[in-house]
Amino acid sequence: AHTPHSCLSISPSSLSVDIQGLQRQIEELSSFSDSPAPTVTRILYSEKDVLARRYIKSLMAQAGLSVREDSIGNIFGRWIGTEAALPAVATGSHIDAIPYSGKYDGIIGVLGAIEAINVLKRTDLQPKRSLEVIMFTSEEPTRFGISCLGSRLLAGSQELAHALKQVVDGQNITFLEAAQFAGYAIHQEDLTSIFLRKDDYFSFVELHIEQGPILENEGIPIGIVTAIAAPASITVDFEGNGGHAGAVLMPSRNDAGLAAAELALAVEKHAMDSGSLDTVGTVGVLELHPGAINSIPSKAHIEIDTRDIDEERRNIVVNEIHQSAIRIAEKRGVKLSKFKIVNQDPPALSSNQIISTMEDAAKQLNLSYNLMISRAYHDSLFMARITPMGMIFIPCYKGYSHKPEEYASPENIVNGVKMLALTMANLSSE
Amino acid sequence: AHTPHSCLSISPSSLSVDIQGLQRQIEELSSFSDSPAPTVTRILYSEKDVLARRYIKSLMAQAGLSVREDSIGNIFGRWIGTEAALPAVATGSHIDAIPYSGKYDGIIGVLGAIEAINVLKRTDLQPKRSLEVIMFTSEEPTRFGISCLGSRLLAGSQELAHALKQVVDGQNITFLEAAQFAGYAIHQEDLTSIFLRKDDYFSFVELHIEQGPILENEGIPIGIVTAIAAPASITVDFEGNGGHAGAVLMPSRNDAGLAAAELALAVEKHAMDSGSLDTVGTVGVLELHPGAINSIPSKAHIEIDTRDIDEERRNIVVNEIHQSAIRIAEKRGVKLSKFKIVNQDPPALSSNQIISTMEDAAKQLNLSYNLMISRAYHDSLFMARITPMGMIFIPCYKGYSHKPEEYASPENIVNGVKMLALTMANLSSE
Ligand SMILES: [Mn+2]
Ligand SMILES: [Mn+2]
Ligand SMILES: [Mn+2]
Ligand SMILES: [Mn+2]
Repeated sequence: AHTPHSCLSISPSSLSVDIQGLQRQIEELSSFSDSPAPTVTRILYSEKDVLARRYIKSLMAQAGLSVREDSIGNIFGRWIGTEAALPAVATGSHIDAIPYSGKYDGIIGVLGAIEAINVLKRTDLQPKRSLEVIMFTSEEPTRFGISCLGSRLLAGSQELAHALKQVVDGQNITFLEAAQFAGYAIHQEDLTSIFLRKDDYFSFVELHIEQGPILENEGIPIGIVTAIAAPASITVDFEGNGGHAGAVLMPSRNDAGLAAAELALAVEKHAMDSGSLDTVGTVGVLELHPGAINSIPSKAHIEIDTRDIDEERRNIVVNEIHQSAIRIAEKRGVKLSKFKIVNQDPPALSSNQIISTMEDAAKQLNLSYNLMISRAYHDSLFMARITPMGMIFIPCYKGYSHKPEEYASPENIVNGVKMLALTMANLSSE
Repeated sequence: AHTPHSCLSISPSSLSVDIQGLQRQIEELSSFSDSPAPTVTRILYSEKDVLARRYIKSLMAQAGLSVREDSIGNIFGRWIGTEAALPAVATGSHIDAIPYSGKYDGIIGVLGAIEAINVLKRTDLQPKRSLEVIMFTSEEPTRFGISCLGSRLLAGSQELAHALKQVVDGQNITFLEAAQFAGYAIHQEDLTSIFLRKDDYFSFVELHIEQGPILENEGIPIGIVTAIAAPASITVDFEGNGGHAGAVLMPSRNDAGLAAAELALAVEKHAMDSGSLDTVGTVGVLELHPGAINSIPSKAHIEIDTRDIDEERRNIVVNEIHQSAIRIAEKRGVKLSKFKIVNQDPPALSSNQIISTMEDAAKQLNLSYNLMISRAYHDSLFMARITPMGMIFIPCYKGYSHKPEEYASPENIVNGVKMLALTMANLSSE
């Protein structure tokens, strides 16, 4: 049911975004990177991540927010409302960046959200509900293979709380050790204490670049997300006898690397054969051991990502990939030593009420919009488990993301920040 | 023409090998490793390589050899003969070890050769020609992608002398910087001064584990190598647009990793379709960039090794791989940004005279032997360019090599060392 918001506390024309300041912040944040500009690499709990976190907290403090940080480093900056006991209106995103990526993924939803607060503070708004900006820990799965680690834990994943006690990164550093390196004195027994309660928030709205080409191609400045596609992640290991690349004849081999190559091509085939354009499957990681030109691979490790807006269709693809892995291992005489579904999350639907609020905001700002699906996942996917959720997309250059060419124009960022500010102000008054 | 060696200066029964001492040396050398036991990883000019080199020089000195080292770290230990001006009889092999490999590949031909000298010193032999043990720098291509770097340069490769001025490793460290790290003050202009002359040696004989299963399967203690198969190494890079694993739909992708996977399978097919069991093709290195589970690979790097005892047939396979790479790049819309034949060496034949000398030694020692082909390459492949060459193989467990299960029994090592000692003594007297 759509409730029109006629009783606005602020007028759209009073919203002014400091886009130069925001662009300077985007540049400054991108300098906390383990790879050279224009690429960005910012891995969970690295030194650069620690510096970037400090920078975000300082911006929150400058915006007059009261800042708290939980024991895995989710950061919360709150503008306390006139009815502080009511559930708050939250927004937020992530600032971690996969290796050699860009400056906008996640960032717009953190720096842009702090600026949206600044925008509202420059009006005479006194929010009824508190407004809160959240910077989530580790949306990207780079270090521990777990996507949306922070929001997933906030949303109450017992499975994750359990897994985090044991998980290690590629250097065999445990999650708890890594967190300690970054200054978080987390203990195993604390992990469930991070969980949020279902009545902590009234709503959650995330601002993000589209990471696809639709808005740019159609010349539409705003996307209003109605659903987030369902991702699954799979880790596969094959093992063979290896041996000398000169001495072992072809019929005597069981090459783990070729099994991995075959499975990578099978992932592509199963995704393409699903019957829908909405199914995607990707092998982004493929590692050979020992990794020498004159050595037959004795181990291969691959990581598979597959997604769909239809959970059942995606699960069929996951199963087909599993069958292919078994068949390839049998055919090649290699051992399928691991086939692990790391996560297999259901899709999330946006709240109809928040969709309406976003549509009203777009109309008040005279911005055309598309109702659309998010094929990438976001922290919103998990926040939707505990509070009504919505997302605002802005166009990005050629739909590029996860690479240094990622870009959003100042005009589009201004539109996104205004959309977020107005949507939050309206939600705050309900 | 076969000249029988009836005028032996030593009797086979006077040869006694200190196998306990030799096994202790094998264990000690294996401890200079960058990976945990039982694996061995010893990369050119690493700290562990520097320690291992020092150990080899100390063993040479203990054996009473006069030691010299050239400016890239080929190490020469010479027992000066009674006619010191005559070309010497040389033996030798390598001690570098690819990542996560074993204790015997190359090692037997260095430590075993020093022990062969000790065996001869324990007899009353006064060699006419000088006897020399060579430890070659970087037989394995691990660090700079160049196999048999030391012997190739000794054998006068102008192409290599040129390439070494510019080549860099995976960390962008130049060959010259890496050599300096290891204590070799090499300058660009010195590289050709390392070349040996064709009359420096009278002959070269290398002792090595078979790295294949034939001798063990047939219960034969000695292999006498008649030819070394011809290796070719190829480096291939593919480049595509990459992008977000969720947001870019399958038909819009040009995934560099899948191009690499397809080429790896094509390498296998071309090797198997050559018409001969002697053709092998291997993809031991396959690296994806950026290497994140939720990122479509924008770059893929693969390294291919293909070999045959028939050079022409191998070159046909190299050409077929090239055609496949072009076809795959076209089909997938990726860029074939590199297809580089790093080396494409001709096979080498052993000297008939040295084969005869080795056969005589086996008969004198009452050891049965196979005449056989080496499918792995060795420093002998390059020494054959400047001096008559021969190789002695001993059996190894299941034919394993380039992995930690690599093993040669004490009995087989004793046989190999005696074969080498007797062969060198006989060649020395000619
Ligand atoms: Mn991302
Ligand atoms: Mn993101
Ligand atoms: Mn080797
Ligand atoms: Mn070797």
